[in-house]
Amino acid sequence: MTTTHRVIDLRSDTVTKPTPAMRLAMAEAEVGDDVYGEDPTVLKLEQRVAALMGMEAAVYVPSGTMGNLIAVLSHCGRGDEMILGDRAHIFLYEQGGSAALGGVHPHTLPNQLDGTLDLMQVENAIRSENVHYPVTRLLALENTHNRCGGRTLTVEYVDAAGALAHDNGLKLHIDGARLWNAAVALGLPPGRLVAAADSVSVCFSKGLGAPVGSVVAGSHEFMRKARRMRKQVGGGMRQAGILAAACLVALDQMVDRLAEDHANARLLASGLALLPGIVIDPEAVETNILYFDVVQPGLTGAALSAGLAARGVLINPTAPQQLRAVTNYHIGAADIETVLGAVEDVLNTGYSGALSTGHLYR
Amino acid sequence: MTTTHRVIDLRSDTVTKPTPAMRLAMAEAEVGDDVYGEDPTVLKLEQRVAALMGMEAAVYVPSGTMGNLIAVLSHCGRGDEMILGDRAHIFLYEQGGSAALGGVHPHTLPNQLDGTLDLMQVENAIRSENVHYPVTRLLALENTHNRCGGRTLTVEYVDAAGALAHDNGLKLHIDGARLWNAAVALGLPPGRLVAAADSVSVCFSKGLGAPVGSVVAGSHEFMRKARRMRKQVGGGMRQAGILAAACLVALDQMVDRLAEDHANARLLASGLALLPGIVIDPEAVETNILYFDVVQPGLTGAALSAGLAARGVLINPTAPQQLRAVTNYHIGAADIETVLGAVEDVLNTGYSGALSTGHLYR
Amino acid sequence: MTTTHRVIDLRSDTVTKPTPAMRLAMAEAEVGDDVYGEDPTVLKLEQRVAALMGMEAAVYVPSGTMGNLIAVLSHCGRGDEMILGDRAHIFLYEQGGSAALGGVHPHTLPNQLDGTLDLMQVENAIRSENVHYPVTRLLALENTHNRCGGRTLTVEYVDAAGALAHDNGLKLHIDGARLWNAAVALGLPPGRLVAAADSVSVCFSKGLGAPVGSVVAGSHEFMRKARRMRKQVGGGMRQAGILAAACLVALDQMVDRLAEDHANARLLASGLALLPGIVIDPEAVETNILYFDVVQPGLTGAALSAGLAARGVLINPTAPQQLRAVTNYHIGAADIETVLGAVEDVLNTGYSGALSTGHLYR
Amino acid sequence: MTTTHRVIDLRSDTVTKPTPAMRLAMAEAEVGDDVYGEDPTVLKLEQRVAALMGMEAAVYVPSGTMGNLIAVLSHCGRGDEMILGDRAHIFLYEQGGSAALGGVHPHTLPNQLDGTLDLMQVENAIRSENVHYPVTRLLALENTHNRCGGRTLTVEYVDAAGALAHDNGLKLHIDGARLWNAAVALGLPPGRLVAAADSVSVCFSKGLGAPVGSVVAGSHEFMRKARRMRKQVGGGMRQAGILAAACLVALDQMVDRLAEDHANARLLASGLALLPGIVIDPEAVETNILYFDVVQPGLTGAALSAGLAARGVLINPTAPQQLRAVTNYHIGAADIETVLGAVEDVLNTGYSGALSTGHLYR
Repeated sequence: MTTTHRVIDLRSDTVTKPTPAMRLAMAEAEVGDDVYGEDPTVLKLEQRVAALMGMEAAVYVPSGTMGNLIAVLSHCGRGDEMILGDRAHIFLYEQGGSAALGGVHPHTLPNQLDGTLDLMQVENAIRSENVHYPVTRLLALENTHNRCGGRTLTVEYVDAAGALAHDNGLKLHIDGARLWNAAVALGLPPGRLVAAADSVSVCFSKGLGAPVGSVVAGSHEFMRKARRMRKQVGGGMRQAGILAAACLVALDQMVDRLAEDHANARLLASGLALLPGIVIDPEAVETNILYFDVVQPGLTGAALSAGLAARGVLINPTAPQQLRAVTNYHIGAADIETVLGAVEDVLNTGYSGALSTGHLYR
Repeated sequence: MTTTHRVIDLRSDTVTKPTPAMRLAMAEAEVGDDVYGEDPTVLKLEQRVAALMGMEAAVYVPSGTMGNLIAVLSHCGRGDEMILGDRAHIFLYEQGGSAALGGVHPHTLPNQLDGTLDLMQVENAIRSENVHYPVTRLLALENTHNRCGGRTLTVEYVDAAGALAHDNGLKLHIDGARLWNAAVALGLPPGRLVAAADSVSVCFSKGLGAPVGSVVAGSHEFMRKARRMRKQVGGGMRQAGILAAACLVALDQMVDRLAEDHANARLLASGLALLPGIVIDPEAVETNILYFDVVQPGLTGAALSAGLAARGVLINPTAPQQLRAVTNYHIGAADIETVLGAVEDVLNTGYSGALSTGHLYR
Repeated sequence: MTTTHRVIDLRSDTVTKPTPAMRLAMAEAEVGDDVYGEDPTVLKLEQRVAALMGMEAAVYVPSGTMGNLIAVLSHCGRGDEMILGDRAHIFLYEQGGSAALGGVHPHTLPNQLDGTLDLMQVENAIRSENVHYPVTRLLALENTHNRCGGRTLTVEYVDAAGALAHDNGLKLHIDGARLWNAAVALGLPPGRLVAAADSVSVCFSKGLGAPVGSVVAGSHEFMRKARRMRKQVGGGMRQAGILAAACLVALDQMVDRLAEDHANARLLASGLALLPGIVIDPEAVETNILYFDVVQPGLTGAALSAGLAARGVLINPTAPQQLRAVTNYHIGAADIETVLGAVEDVLNTGYSGALSTGHLYR
Repeated sequence: MTTTHRVIDLRSDTVTKPTPAMRLAMAEAEVGDDVYGEDPTVLKLEQRVAALMGMEAAVYVPSGTMGNLIAVLSHCGRGDEMILGDRAHIFLYEQGGSAALGGVHPHTLPNQLDGTLDLMQVENAIRSENVHYPVTRLLALENTHNRCGGRTLTVEYVDAAGALAHDNGLKLHIDGARLWNAAVALGLPPGRLVAAADSVSVCFSKGLGAPVGSVVAGSHEFMRKARRMRKQVGGGMRQAGILAAACLVALDQMVDRLAEDHANARLLASGLALLPGIVIDPEAVETNILYFDVVQPGLTGAALSAGLAARGVLINPTAPQQLRAVTNYHIGAADIETVLGAVEDVLNTGYSGALSTGHLYR
């Protein structure tokens, strides 16, 4: 499937382009004005995701960032506090929107290597009633956990976190931008992974390959607030059924195949682990994301990234000596061989060209 | 073109569905990850709108509400004040988002019948430097003005407002959700209508019929902030070129034909003016929006709306004795005759059925 | 009591200095750490004001602005709407803090000449349930109404406003910075004036002459939020009993004598009304505040103010041709004669000196 | 000085009551309306503190919380990020006001035992320019550091932190609620400790014993914003010279004597270190705050606190097995002996009474 000139893009699974089936579905989608609640395709997607998540209701939004934002702002009023990991996407990569726009105070705890928070620390971080303290309202987890290497949170952990939250009057939100990957990796229905949660956001524009969109699910009462928040931030769209149609195709055709992405990620990790100058633990690669360190003297992550780009392979640096690769449905097993060859080539020959600016992305 | 069973929907021009040409364009759109700035169709739309508006740059967003929100939040910091009309869409129908999310203090002045603000009142409302006062940063106008009957603001008025704003250190934003209608009605290029403005938002999902999207245009410096704000509120989308492709078709094919909608609105207004029990000034109908009053004893706006709905005509009540009709590309001249007949029929026979809840919408 | 060189300061009643009795009380005040709830003098003041207002509880704050701010933020969450007059102190002179800091959307209605809002307009302004609208939570009135000439709101009006608010699920807050003046002018206990209100703020540093402080009163449930808000904005003070001691003296000794200020204000108004070049309706002067217009050709409000300052009389201009005078306990009937003579003198001789910057203040 | 029945209050130095000299000064203070900038005593205090801090200007506020709040909100706009310690008073004990009211995103880093932040971690936490990130604007330090045991930050550390901040376009704010203690402990003028800072807040109602008030100092440009922010949050007071007069006495008479409090704290620490069942490192006690752990089986911090209260000694628990004691000018060396005896007595006899709710306070 690869050709000499084709770029192998492992920067993220967000770069995936819609499949022919999605394009057809979009061209033929039945639509209406969703602000009036009259877009049948959007309604169908929302109902289907709600059912999959085991939640009462759901709402379609144009991005994962908006999904998390309206969830946090629906759970938390001005000045309430949210507990989350210091490597959480919500904390690191959403521009601090929940504080900026909603006056929500983020209380970070150190993410452990597997993406969890120590529940003892969570319990200690919950504020007692005192005029000096904000009111703790929300615990937010992320599954799979992007910045912790695409690690999955186990059902046992999420259930325990939910019980702790509820025992203390908190809600539990799960940033499930890649919950589909977690479900496939764990061999469980996605709804089981959020059984203890009060809300979840899931994305269609990452591994599932749809062009645009996320869905937030929760109770009817939560949804009443979330729909208001969606409108307030400008997420109310008109004939959004065009986009929802592609998301429905994604649900039908693109979930199970995530197992291929995971296999390719492990293949890549195993290959990288054999290269001198690269450090990675293949055992820790559970889904489609892998981080690896460059330890060859004189070679930085940015230089390796640039050297790879010159060879038609896109992988972003994420720290001075670290890179992140994300497999996706455009990447086949043969591509992995090409990537490994390119990495080895840069390690052998070095890189002395110009560096582009590396970014951290979903 | 009308059939017995077809519903004639005059609730808004937001209910318009994509044309076949738009569906084709969406199916074939070249796309990329727009969060990386790599969606060629989005870039093309942004550049084209910037050029049309005579602005340096532009950014695509999923809704007009988001367009206005990020414009206001880019011009105004926490605690700054914005002057706008008391019938402005931003004030009435965007859930107070600029205050809620951005801490911007709205200072309303009474909209005059033609959608303008009295510039003397604007000047008086601008705050002097005083620790008791917020800092006035922004004047916001709306063209055409939805709640003032789709009236157009003249070039002379907008230029004078811009000069007043700039003389006092304020920025001028124009909510141009229906700027295309104003341009067609005035026979001027849309860019001329915003020559004095620092930013403008325009919509593609109203009279132009595209499914989703608006564009905000302004200077490079403004756009740097606006792009950040778009990301913060969750308006950064991935392969949004799907949607932008339809907007490009709308620009090519759907602007000039707005003249038909305006002619149909005048036709409707003239017909309504002849009906006893209805009050409307056809001279005030400049574009595709018309408001009319029901003055027949015993008949409310809600009842007339319900009676019309029972006859396959959708027109929303907007006040106890008032309704709003909006023509659009699904509505032909023959439909107008049908509508007039239906109104006359309800006036003659009354209405005693159940009332649905009427809403005010774009 | 006046001497040749003494300045007669009618800029505001906020300029009043503590009486000897207040200074003695402050020097001897029993105090404790009020953040621990251990300052007996603060507690005494709070309980006394709560009782006077017929409310369950009260909290001491360092300013009237903070009193209103924490009341609004206790009643309204992020994005809620408040209805208030376009001449309300909260809207005009508190820097838009409720929007800036609390995300509360102000919905202004035109204040009538007597400081009231048209209750029909209030009813129409209350939002229905709709995702386009903020939720209306609060109606705020002001008694006496500063910018409307110190006018009092009658018990009948406030009761009707309260009933309207409560029928629609709103709370009623009264900015009673000068509620004491209203009570004395109307010959009613202050609590009667706020019987229909859910919260009230009253000031001690205006006509009552105490150096610092206001008190907010309301229900226990409201107070729980208000105390949190006070702490959040930094209004929690330590041994504040020093200040509260002066407020207690003010309650004992300074309320009834406000009648003298009112008499002096009427004396001044009657005298001014006789001067050609000055326009004022003495009948509209109900308490200690009076606004008057300068209509003598060539003389502005700022020039008259400056001319008076050169004669030892301080009165602020409040508009190009308008000034405001506020009587207070430092001003005797003889001073009024001096003021009238000074005004007449400026009218006769004109003023050609430099203008200082006039400010609008409480 | 101690009597049998006198309570020895070591809960905080905020419980200190004004000295006779302060009461006299308050009774005789020359005052004016500070909102007009006419209170000579407030102006004198502000100028004196500005000079002491080596800053251009200063502003008086009613609390340390407000001092920090207006400093943060003056440095940071909506959505900007602030780096601070996870044990910082601003983060832990000010109700999250900077996020709640100002939309500032707190980015915490682990405080080290000595109250510092690792400057390498600070540098890594500063965000690059990216639409996913907030803009990092502020570094906030605390000296002495309350929750880290009253530890002082050295001049070298603060200078290095300031250089790092400025090299990266950040401002440096110092929460100097107890900067006076740091200055005395380090034997340096307080201004030297903030030479690298852009703003500092200092308190008069803690160890210095004044009843109410803090001062924020900084540049003229900063102060223009800070004065606006003070007014917005309701910190503008009228005849505040009453309070400022006590603060001036505190500067004259109460700074040098903090050395006694430090000596008493060390005395207490040394005594506690000798008790089996108590763990404390006397070497770490640098100023007037000391934390100690209870390790005797069956005895909690809350129980020890309650047992001490029954013996007339007030010391708050701050964690399940931890208490905090704060010496102040009401506490003499003889009191320390009494306290040690009481602790020993509880350790020997245990405690089985009711527990009051312990709170963490300044």
